[in-house]
Amino acid sequence: MEAIEEYPMNGGHGIYSYAKNSYRQGQAINAVKELIKEEITEKLDINKFPSSDTFRIVDMGCSAGPNTFFAVQNVLEAVEKKYQREGLDHCRLPEFQVFFNDHSSNDFNTLFTSLPPNTNYYVAGVPGSFHVRLFPEASLHIVISSYAIQWISHIPKELVDRSSPAWNKGRTYYAHAGAETIKAYADQFAKDMDNFFHFRAQEVVPGGMVLLTIPGGRLDYQILSNTLYDLLESTIVDLAKKGIISEEKLDSFNVPQYFPSPQEMEAAVKRNGCFSIERIECLHDEKKQANPKEARVFSSHMRAGLEFLLSEHFGHEIMDELFDLFTKKIEECEVFDMGVAFKLLVVLKRK
Amino acid sequence: MEAIEEYPMNGGHGIYSYAKNSYRQGQAINAVKELIKEEITEKLDINKFPSSDTFRIVDMGCSAGPNTFFAVQNVLEAVEKKYQREGLDHCRLPEFQVFFNDHSSNDFNTLFTSLPPNTNYYVAGVPGSFHVRLFPEASLHIVISSYAIQWISHIPKELVDRSSPAWNKGRTYYAHAGAETIKAYADQFAKDMDNFFHFRAQEVVPGGMVLLTIPGGRLDYQILSNTLYDLLESTIVDLAKKGIISEEKLDSFNVPQYFPSPQEMEAAVKRNGCFSIERIECLHDEKKQANPKEARVFSSHMRAGLEFLLSEHFGHEIMDELFDLFTKKIEECEVFDMGVAFKLLVVLKRK
Repeated sequence: MEAIEEYPMNGGHGIYSYAKNSYRQGQAINAVKELIKEEITEKLDINKFPSSDTFRIVDMGCSAGPNTFFAVQNVLEAVEKKYQREGLDHCRLPEFQVFFNDHSSNDFNTLFTSLPPNTNYYVAGVPGSFHVRLFPEASLHIVISSYAIQWISHIPKELVDRSSPAWNKGRTYYAHAGAETIKAYADQFAKDMDNFFHFRAQEVVPGGMVLLTIPGGRLDYQILSNTLYDLLESTIVDLAKKGIISEEKLDSFNVPQYFPSPQEMEAAVKRNGCFSIERIECLHDEKKQANPKEARVFSSHMRAGLEFLLSEHFGHEIMDELFDLFTKKIEECEVFDMGVAFKLLVVLKRK
Repeated sequence: MEAIEEYPMNGGHGIYSYAKNSYRQGQAINAVKELIKEEITEKLDINKFPSSDTFRIVDMGCSAGPNTFFAVQNVLEAVEKKYQREGLDHCRLPEFQVFFNDHSSNDFNTLFTSLPPNTNYYVAGVPGSFHVRLFPEASLHIVISSYAIQWISHIPKELVDRSSPAWNKGRTYYAHAGAETIKAYADQFAKDMDNFFHFRAQEVVPGGMVLLTIPGGRLDYQILSNTLYDLLESTIVDLAKKGIISEEKLDSFNVPQYFPSPQEMEAAVKRNGCFSIERIECLHDEKKQANPKEARVFSSHMRAGLEFLLSEHFGHEIMDELFDLFTKKIEECEVFDMGVAFKLLVVLKRK
């Protein structure tokens, strides 16, 4: 297996921290909140779980908070409602243990020191990639993941191989790239999903659920234009033209994210075979009128998620210049997309 | 319940970090290594555990590593040996999940990024004080804690109350203090142990074990002299005499550690009533000839554990001066004690 790369969000509580710049992920959690509650209260097979069992929930790719706490609270409320609906009194509610999972380079210190007070669950943090096995067999009842599994485990080699037709010269991600480049991204995502479902099938108990919220970008192979990713690419290309970064550095950089279509997710679940598909729902994003006042907000938002990656590749010293230019590009747009065509909610049940 | 204070060890990998200055705790783990293995392989009731269960181990007060990894590995080897001894083949070994517990202000980032490669257990970190409930009911098979439970949950109020006979004026811990001061420390430790065993009794499965390694300092109320704590107190008193710290600051500072006797530990376990005492063993420390070359090492060792506390109280800016003076005091000693009279190994089994 190829090495899994880590792309931590910016830690701490600073102006470019994930904790202070993740409202968009928070909006996504909010947008699917009621759907997730509905799915859990309708479909979770609590009668399959021994009543003495601790009920175990994990958020995979939780980052440093606070979004993960809202997502988890939402799930807990739904599970409690489900137990109440089945006629069990409050005393019979199971004990809850919540695992917060992300790469070992994630800022767990910030996560742990910003835990909500008086939680009604036991807390644990689990360091490691969700592309590998993380938990004992059949030990999880609900897996959630919000805006995380679009991060592919690594950039496929052919994207930076001059001799490959997939070489992504002069670009930083797959939109507007050739078919071979798009295929390399799509294939890597498909492999990653095969691992993801393979390991989750081992970890989740029969009757347990997996609920994934994913930024979805491709529908019938249509690629959006004027997304934040387009503008970021154009920023990096401009810096290369100015000689601030080398052409070689531009050619060897690729954003390790892939925004799947509903069909791709469905296919991955079916290849695995251990989960039934309970729901795949697209929630369309609005086009956003570019507002100069908000440009800095969007720019900081992207910075919180991508700065680690960009500074590792291009050097820490050009980050301010890069994001200043990026902010200007957002300001100059009339209309732009948040980056993806829709949010995708995938709800699965372990057979 | 009174607020529980947090006293994190120095994080990171710097020259005064716990990770680089915890050889003494490492020595303690090494000293009891074979005893712990022996106790586990002889006394763990694995037949009481359902064979499908994940085997769960926790190290309470694990700090930022690396000692905790050695302590956990030792336990794992003993448990595996136990399963093999009972005639079960390797395929029947349970899956292991190891929880690393410490205060939420502990440096979990350093802990998680320095995990040994290819562990044969699933990893989780649990933030929170071991003076409260941390885990679901009957979910743990082995609890270990090395050089951690001597930290009391907070300084009893009477130690800083001018009107109390326990007021610890002009001193920073209980050695050489009056009987009322010693009693205030001892009572707080006893209360903390009552909480500790109360919550562990809920968390540990019947047949599971609790193995505590504790620096023990009091045997028949004899207090050692020329310990590192004496020298540290003398350093702080000197700084007060020089006017570098105020008398009020000196009077209001107390090291929140208590080094119990075997009798005190035995009494606490018996008050709780849920555990059988399998072994209480004293391992005596050697007196140490003061070696000027090693003074800096001992000083940094104390700094890794106490700097947070000292700098919160006296101010960060005097830490270098304080520890330079402390180092000189160690150099000037002919013979000194490491700080405690013995290591105490307490081995318990959940009834």
